[in-house]
Amino acid sequence: VYTIILPLGCHPSPALRPGCRELLRPAVGRGCRAPSPAGWEQARCSASTRLTWSICTPRVINAEKSEFNEDQAACCQISIRRREPGLEEDEEWLILCSTQFLTGYYWALFDGHGGPEAAIIASNYLHYCIKQKLEEVVGGITETRPPMHLSGRCVCDSDPQFVEEKHIQAEDLVVGVLENAFQECDEVIGQEMEATNQTGGCTALAALYFQGKLYVANAGDSRAILVLKDDVVPMTCEFTPETERQRIQHLAFLFPKLLDGEFTRFEFPRRLKGDDVGQKVLYRDYFMEGWGYKTVEKADLKYPLVHGHGKQARLLGTLAVSRGLGDHQLKVIDTNIEVKPFLSCIPKVNVFDFAQHDIKEDDVLVMATDGLWDVLCNKEVAHVVRSFLAENRTDPHRFSELAKCLVCRARGKKRGHQWMLDDSCEASYDDISVFVIPLHKRDED
Amino acid sequence: VYTIILPLGCHPSPALRPGCRELLRPAVGRGCRAPSPAGWEQARCSASTRLTWSICTPRVINAEKSEFNEDQAACCQISIRRREPGLEEDEEWLILCSTQFLTGYYWALFDGHGGPEAAIIASNYLHYCIKQKLEEVVGGITETRPPMHLSGRCVCDSDPQFVEEKHIQAEDLVVGVLENAFQECDEVIGQEMEATNQTGGCTALAALYFQGKLYVANAGDSRAILVLKDDVVPMTCEFTPETERQRIQHLAFLFPKLLDGEFTRFEFPRRLKGDDVGQKVLYRDYFMEGWGYKTVEKADLKYPLVHGHGKQARLLGTLAVSRGLGDHQLKVIDTNIEVKPFLSCIPKVNVFDFAQHDIKEDDVLVMATDGLWDVLCNKEVAHVVRSFLAENRTDPHRFSELAKCLVCRARGKKRGHQWMLDDSCEASYDDISVFVIPLHKRDED
Repeated sequence: VYTIILPLGCHPSPALRPGCRELLRPAVGRGCRAPSPAGWEQARCSASTRLTWSICTPRVINAEKSEFNEDQAACCQISIRRREPGLEEDEEWLILCSTQFLTGYYWALFDGHGGPEAAIIASNYLHYCIKQKLEEVVGGITETRPPMHLSGRCVCDSDPQFVEEKHIQAEDLVVGVLENAFQECDEVIGQEMEATNQTGGCTALAALYFQGKLYVANAGDSRAILVLKDDVVPMTCEFTPETERQRIQHLAFLFPKLLDGEFTRFEFPRRLKGDDVGQKVLYRDYFMEGWGYKTVEKADLKYPLVHGHGKQARLLGTLAVSRGLGDHQLKVIDTNIEVKPFLSCIPKVNVFDFAQHDIKEDDVLVMATDGLWDVLCNKEVAHVVRSFLAENRTDPHRFSELAKCLVCRARGKKRGHQWMLDDSCEASYDDISVFVIPLHKRDED
Repeated sequence: VYTIILPLGCHPSPALRPGCRELLRPAVGRGCRAPSPAGWEQARCSASTRLTWSICTPRVINAEKSEFNEDQAACCQISIRRREPGLEEDEEWLILCSTQFLTGYYWALFDGHGGPEAAIIASNYLHYCIKQKLEEVVGGITETRPPMHLSGRCVCDSDPQFVEEKHIQAEDLVVGVLENAFQECDEVIGQEMEATNQTGGCTALAALYFQGKLYVANAGDSRAILVLKDDVVPMTCEFTPETERQRIQHLAFLFPKLLDGEFTRFEFPRRLKGDDVGQKVLYRDYFMEGWGYKTVEKADLKYPLVHGHGKQARLLGTLAVSRGLGDHQLKVIDTNIEVKPFLSCIPKVNVFDFAQHDIKEDDVLVMATDGLWDVLCNKEVAHVVRSFLAENRTDPHRFSELAKCLVCRARGKKRGHQWMLDDSCEASYDDISVFVIPLHKRDED
């Protein structure tokens, strides 16, 4: 478990890291061995010289489930240089002046599987991809309406009308940046893992506060919600073999060789067996949201491409998520079947425009890996957030304490050999990572 | 223009038609020549012996735009026989007794392109596919929870739990029926058109009232909305090259040969030209909801796979819709490039459960082809519906008159050489078809 909180608008201290010098990452939680099972270790990083920055990282390897924590987190300030059009890369020094910086704030959670390696690379690299790609389009972002040509040159008189007709706004460029950055980061992970002969993958949830808007990009089963005074706003949807069944089945329909004769494309309520052959049983194919009956043939007894329900749902009997980074080498055990073709590294990006909302003092963004959401629903989390913040109004560390409180809730208490929640349900046995990000006064530097 | 109204729960008179004996279709509007341009012809079909049935079919070939009306409509009662398990097809006479019928009510609109032929076949055949497929699964539909095995036999003790875990309900079987029926109808159209050496395709919008629920299946750019006392509920979304850009671009990414080197997969705000080469211009690829900048290469000057905006958007420069039936032979003009691989015949099905709503006297379902929606938005249609019905409370034909009124609104008035709306906007030059279906007292037979 690895929790971290960061008030919006507070700048981290510079760290010596190539590409994103502003990155600050606690040295804990990097797949490192737990000092004591279920024990808490606090690390408080002090503020940079210029600005306050409070960061709190309680950590626990959850319920002795895993020796290594596969969750990773990153947060940093992203400074974007504005290049003059036509200026070559080697003339960059000409424009390195502070007024030519735009600033973004970045938080991300990566939930690794098959080891923490992919999550570690992603946590070191994704913000760098985002920074680079933002700089590439910054000339378009700073205009009220992005120009058809990045150079600003107008090749065709009606170019501005074409852009307006398509409703293209600066916000769409940031969404495009995030989509492209995830894809580039995935490629880099693939190269890095191959070069170092490592395996594994991770989900990725990234939030970017930039130019008055919050962008939340998600690929996997982590989740982010805004807990506002009178509303709870989901900022992500989960990508699992169950939620992406139709996309996955459709690929298998288009490229049957991907299943190598070992899996069936069809979905059934349970795995079929010999007794079912010849019977008409419930099934779904790629084009169906509804269900039908299919006469069972022998080929239908194969293991289904997407199988199981809820947390048990698996892609090719192997993965519990359908989007994320890495897994380039992953094959179904004892076969030559690759999982990667069915995975997507593209995030769904949702945007929240602060100009459209009156943000109150206790409004926060909660980002967490599935370890939290498996045992607490949005409504329960919102209740904890509101009551905790109301009861701890004067505590300067109340947002860190809230993140810790949410982790404790999901982790439960040990009773005998089991970890239980307050309501006697079984607690989460997964890694749990939580960001609580206050949204009020976010631009007060 | 072809409008038709049918109060829910009123049965049509039997017509001698194989497969769906209950079908009643007016003889007008079948791609037949207009008696006089912009003239109205009324055909009123009287009720069957058993039940009242009022049908009103004003017709006009709109604004002399087209010689033939490419819109088609169908409506009928669909009676579903309940077969005893194990009973063979040739023993069907054993169970032909009235208490073993379930009844559905069906309305559909088909907007043809490249001629009315596909729309005519679809209007004659889709309800038959639906009837057949409903009969195939009727044993599952009549249970509160569909059984894993259609026979009702329980192969595995926990089968009911598996079905419950997946939340499979009778409603899902009806959705599956509609999805499969559209697909079968498309295959039949393909065979029929090839056999008779005809070409063309059509959109399909079908509504089915069955077991207390309204199912609306849509493939194309027609639209259905519920106009309720205090609410307007959209029952469809449109499938056009613009709304399905990512699906279409993704197919071209997976199978580049489909474009035969003649089209570019990328979307740009306008078609590029020589002057754009080397410049960075706004673009989107299949995985992007946002926009980015791309350095233009010579290959980007090709015609874009999806091009244009709004009503001008085209797939392969050819079609304005991305889903529908037919078009099996359609090729891009002067090329060997097939359009069909990019088209989908699968409808999106939305369900409205009357048990969850208190339906008022003037609540209606409005179904119409794009000719109506191009010039009137949902809000405007709802306003016309509410004010017309309030002003004509005692008229027994007020629903027919309302449908006619909606068509008139969209058709506009001739001023010089132009057809204009009341607000001096240009009127629809397309065929316009409207169903207005009263929802109150729908089960009073």
